[in-house]
Amino acid sequence: MTRILVLNGNTTQAITDRIAAAARAAAPPGVTIEGMTAPYGLPLIVTRADWLLAGPPILEALASRRGHYDAAVIAVFGDPALDAAKELLDVPVLGISEAAFHAASMLGRRFGIVSFTAALRPMFEDCLDQHGLRGRLAGFRMGPPDASYPAELGAAEQAQLLALIEQSVALDGAEAVILAGGPLAGLAPVLQPRVAVPLVDGTAAAVRLAAALAGLAPALRSRRPRPLSGYGAAISGLYARS
Amino acid sequence: MTRILVLNGNTTQAITDRIAAAARAAAPPGVTIEGMTAPYGLPLIVTRADWLLAGPPILEALASRRGHYDAAVIAVFGDPALDAAKELLDVPVLGISEAAFHAASMLGRRFGIVSFTAALRPMFEDCLDQHGLRGRLAGFRMGPPDASYPAELGAAEQAQLLALIEQSVALDGAEAVILAGGPLAGLAPVLQPRVAVPLVDGTAAAVRLAAALAGLAPALRSRRPRPLSGYGAAISGLYARS
Amino acid sequence: MTRILVLNGNTTQAITDRIAAAARAAAPPGVTIEGMTAPYGLPLIVTRADWLLAGPPILEALASRRGHYDAAVIAVFGDPALDAAKELLDVPVLGISEAAFHAASMLGRRFGIVSFTAALRPMFEDCLDQHGLRGRLAGFRMGPPDASYPAELGAAEQAQLLALIEQSVALDGAEAVILAGGPLAGLAPVLQPRVAVPLVDGTAAAVRLAAALAGLAPALRSRRPRPLSGYGAAISGLYARS
Amino acid sequence: MTRILVLNGNTTQAITDRIAAAARAAAPPGVTIEGMTAPYGLPLIVTRADWLLAGPPILEALASRRGHYDAAVIAVFGDPALDAAKELLDVPVLGISEAAFHAASMLGRRFGIVSFTAALRPMFEDCLDQHGLRGRLAGFRMGPPDASYPAELGAAEQAQLLALIEQSVALDGAEAVILAGGPLAGLAPVLQPRVAVPLVDGTAAAVRLAAALAGLAPALRSRRPRPLSGYGAAISGLYARS
Amino acid sequence: MTRILVLNGNTTQAITDRIAAAARAAAPPGVTIEGMTAPYGLPLIVTRADWLLAGPPILEALASRRGHYDAAVIAVFGDPALDAAKELLDVPVLGISEAAFHAASMLGRRFGIVSFTAALRPMFEDCLDQHGLRGRLAGFRMGPPDASYPAELGAAEQAQLLALIEQSVALDGAEAVILAGGPLAGLAPVLQPRVAVPLVDGTAAAVRLAAALAGLAPALRSRRPRPLSGYGAAISGLYARS
Amino acid sequence: MTRILVLNGNTTQAITDRIAAAARAAAPPGVTIEGMTAPYGLPLIVTRADWLLAGPPILEALASRRGHYDAAVIAVFGDPALDAAKELLDVPVLGISEAAFHAASMLGRRFGIVSFTAALRPMFEDCLDQHGLRGRLAGFRMGPPDASYPAELGAAEQAQLLALIEQSVALDGAEAVILAGGPLAGLAPVLQPRVAVPLVDGTAAAVRLAAALAGLAPALRSRRPRPLSGYGAAISGLYARS
Repeated sequence: MTRILVLNGNTTQAITDRIAAAARAAAPPGVTIEGMTAPYGLPLIVTRADWLLAGPPILEALASRRGHYDAAVIAVFGDPALDAAKELLDVPVLGISEAAFHAASMLGRRFGIVSFTAALRPMFEDCLDQHGLRGRLAGFRMGPPDASYPAELGAAEQAQLLALIEQSVALDGAEAVILAGGPLAGLAPVLQPRVAVPLVDGTAAAVRLAAALAGLAPALRSRRPRPLSGYGAAISGLYARS
Repeated sequence: MTRILVLNGNTTQAITDRIAAAARAAAPPGVTIEGMTAPYGLPLIVTRADWLLAGPPILEALASRRGHYDAAVIAVFGDPALDAAKELLDVPVLGISEAAFHAASMLGRRFGIVSFTAALRPMFEDCLDQHGLRGRLAGFRMGPPDASYPAELGAAEQAQLLALIEQSVALDGAEAVILAGGPLAGLAPVLQPRVAVPLVDGTAAAVRLAAALAGLAPALRSRRPRPLSGYGAAISGLYARS
Repeated sequence: MTRILVLNGNTTQAITDRIAAAARAAAPPGVTIEGMTAPYGLPLIVTRADWLLAGPPILEALASRRGHYDAAVIAVFGDPALDAAKELLDVPVLGISEAAFHAASMLGRRFGIVSFTAALRPMFEDCLDQHGLRGRLAGFRMGPPDASYPAELGAAEQAQLLALIEQSVALDGAEAVILAGGPLAGLAPVLQPRVAVPLVDGTAAAVRLAAALAGLAPALRSRRPRPLSGYGAAISGLYARS
Repeated sequence: MTRILVLNGNTTQAITDRIAAAARAAAPPGVTIEGMTAPYGLPLIVTRADWLLAGPPILEALASRRGHYDAAVIAVFGDPALDAAKELLDVPVLGISEAAFHAASMLGRRFGIVSFTAALRPMFEDCLDQHGLRGRLAGFRMGPPDASYPAELGAAEQAQLLALIEQSVALDGAEAVILAGGPLAGLAPVLQPRVAVPLVDGTAAAVRLAAALAGLAPALRSRRPRPLSGYGAAISGLYARS
Repeated sequence: MTRILVLNGNTTQAITDRIAAAARAAAPPGVTIEGMTAPYGLPLIVTRADWLLAGPPILEALASRRGHYDAAVIAVFGDPALDAAKELLDVPVLGISEAAFHAASMLGRRFGIVSFTAALRPMFEDCLDQHGLRGRLAGFRMGPPDASYPAELGAAEQAQLLALIEQSVALDGAEAVILAGGPLAGLAPVLQPRVAVPLVDGTAAAVRLAAALAGLAPALRSRRPRPLSGYGAAISGLYARS
Repeated sequence: MTRILVLNGNTTQAITDRIAAAARAAAPPGVTIEGMTAPYGLPLIVTRADWLLAGPPILEALASRRGHYDAAVIAVFGDPALDAAKELLDVPVLGISEAAFHAASMLGRRFGIVSFTAALRPMFEDCLDQHGLRGRLAGFRMGPPDASYPAELGAAEQAQLLALIEQSVALDGAEAVILAGGPLAGLAPVLQPRVAVPLVDGTAAAVRLAAALAGLAPALRSRRPRPLSGYGAAISGLYARS
């Protein structure tokens, strides 16, 4: 039995519920999912400062549940706190952007990124650079930067996404396509039958890859106990252990 | 039940047996492994021409067992035929270099590559470039280029590897280390207890990641039937299907 | 007298004839051209799997005529089998993409790539990366990805190409322009009088550069004889020689 | 009169005092320096998790003194919170790594990085990548990774540094050299008379460049007020303003 | 008192006067500006050959005023003679492209470049590569390549620029914008109140950064006296000194 | 008959004579070589300022012989004036570094650079970046940076070079090796019989490639006549022609 903690980095419980459901739908047999909401921070993570401020509550949450999961997923595009979490925890921790990039890279030579709004583009470019995979990008196909996400993803919205996916494949040469943006979670299996290349969903990819890595390479870095002030008991406790 | 075909790209059955055993040891529950040997080619794959000539028998083998596996692993460092196989087959196909690079990238910020012989270095550099992950490399720590692999990996050889791993971590800042070279297959779990960062074995990583991707994103590219001459029935059949 | 073997990597004799004629037109004095068709494979090379499967017949052909040429040209865009051929043969072997990129780089600071169809773009991007010259590219100017090549290159088609060339120069800053795609072979000297920057044809560039390198640096790598199974006598013979 | 806030990202007042003194020594006429200590966090910032956890107290400190400075310097190698601070504040904010890299790049074609301990190397590599200036690096010349910093920088330690600087210039071709690591602050003007290329100190460079940019380009991004929970009043106030 | 020499690399005195006025407007307190015109060369620098031929008169001018300035600015986009001047002189020398790139990089994560004419684009791409900062570019937003600069920058021209700036911010994600092209000098402070991100003017940035570096790191490389023929006394004198 | 002008960029006639002899030895049948010495400048080109100051006399020389050659070679490592010459002249102009890099890239997957002195290394790195071929470099193998070139290349010096070449091949994986530095001109054919990979000489490569390109793609850029002051009649004449 492999236990995966899926952590929503913002404070909105409804988003946690949706992410956890998508994670459970993608989980392989023998894998259990625990959804968790960031204990404090912002209801929605949008700016660069938001990513930074989402970091400590993510680490607090991961620290507070330590020992109850075999791998963790930080379910925020842009992968806040990811490097710190990898360093601090003794189980694999994956971000959903990271997982989408790596899964797409293994499914095709170059991947496209599709979303309703180009507002995500600079964040994705930074994140591709951070993971070193910008060279695998076929290109972005996105709606206008000021587009708001539709409340409901009906037939019209699906048709719009399929058109963007088609452009990514036909014009950019994408051999896999990442559906980017929280509201698209869970849509990949719905659209997949109408698309000739793999569609990649960040949460699903992260759950699958986290389960794969959970068994692969556990390790514990030795460290000196150090005093951390101004943060909660869980994370200060992680620093205090030897 | 997920079926993974693990394909040895050279013609040496003993190597197939060893790889299949390593694959089975790493397979998650519910995953079965079928080992397979390239039907023709070279007993050992060493040069660039070897990689090319190993390609068609790999594709033939994959084509001949089509329908009997849910994902495939090409178990040759350097990943011969990988892009062609990804394009031609309708299930995920992973190479063991590719899998090692991606797994190591997800387990640490920068990874080292350790082997007994620096003769592998140019191949690994090409392969890192091919997968776009050269930027994640912390560095190589390898024995001399003319070193031959020891027949037996005894205590002395293990100590030599541990010293190289230690240099990779301490001097290059590696946060995960790939054990490179066929004879090291299966060694990662043996050495892991003595190492503070994750050790990555290509075959194990490939089996785990292939199982993870098997369920994620199946897709079938449409294509026109085309005549292929001079190759066996299985691969010509793949070309002939619409 | 310098003898250059120009090898058509697909099995269509008419294409060989056209390529050989273009090669002869571009050959400097004292250089003879031998055209040759791949002994098996595909009538047209289009996909990534095609490139791989075209490799062994190309190596077979090169091996079978060994000793009868001083340099060879692999006349397929995408340069299949190129690295293996360079390694295996003891005379220079050039690809037509490689030759076009290097010639264009020496003729101007940045070069454009022009063709009737954007379907070639991903292949050219991969190929630019393989040769390390992506940074010299000013940009692509290509027709739609689903365009088919015209049967005849009449005044209308030439005007279309000239418009794309003009965009490459004026909008992308190209200082040399590569005409990409087999059907454009031989067109560069026709259009050159109407264009202010050098037009580069892959076959012509390859013949010229192969002749230049033929005399420069002959070398023979020592090697151990090794058994190769499943391929023809010529290439197995190359492996068997010491 | 230009007011620069120099923020020590750790909680050790003695380090703040030393940094503020170095900043004052480097400040141009008409520039005043205010030193400030992070209100919570770690006494010393060493690991990747430390950098993340140092971020919020840095933003809190910057927010709490808003209006009392014309530019700010985050005086921690590795530049924690830098992008968030640039985004959130309406005055220029510079990191000392960033400043050292840019100053060195403007003083010479390629710069070396010299320190007592190679433990800083991975952090500097990440930081060079983050600022896009890895290509300007001539190389690192550092003591062993487990070296501890000497308590006193006497003649022997200075001679050791001068030897590393000399190697950087003679063997790596450095045309400017960055002295890296907190304890070296203030040493550049002492060693400069014995070195033929510019020596760059991060704090001094940051103060000078911050003063230069302070007058150049003030701007205020418009934003929507948003609720931030779990952090102090100053930073939540920054989020709440429109 | 810091003295900055601002050198116009072409022979047109009217341009010198305009640049010197812009430099004085941007100079911090305690900094004096001396404008200077290249003693020979071209009335306007446009082509790559122009940049080369502008180099020696720039070095001559810098050499002839040696000792009368503490830092120098080469006020030509494309930064002719910059590396040679840095090497030859014993005070900091900055180019206006260099200064704009570095200032913009310190003011925002990615910067846009805006101008009336795309004719500048290849030069800027080369220059970004030379300074290693291409990765920080958000994108170009420029008028057509054959646009001529308006004689007067009236309300219509300003509106056109503001529209390009807005596209750079909204579509490319620019967090700072460089106004490129000589005729735009002095416009940044005029447009800044209507723009939410910093606008960067090359001359102003160069003057500010040169003043900042003037005090930081003076150094004199030792050299052997060498004979230089065919150039004026000032530069030959620089070569002749030991 | 193809006429190639080989231009020595420094003012030392003896070097011109040696270069011209090496060029003649490498010239293919039907190619004539004219050696030429820079009309002014420096007796030896060593520093970055030297490269710049060598530019105008090179352009003057090329302009003064215009019409008497079909291609030109700038025979100075570092390729001074190359981009300007390519732009200004209506025949191909090649640099010897450029030619060596391109020839070596076509002769092997990665090339090494070997010389007696590491003092050349920063120049070669810059030059590799300028031509975009740094990624093809296997590595440098050079003597100490303060080594002076031996007056005579006797058996001991040849043995030293062969050792460096051997390291480049065995340790760096070089598949072609460039002999760098003027005094090594003409040595490649002497050492080639003892080396298993191609040895590349810059002058020989440049002559061969210039001859190859001479016939390929002549073009004349249209331009407006423009006044150039302070330079000789030949180059001013080039500017004045329409």
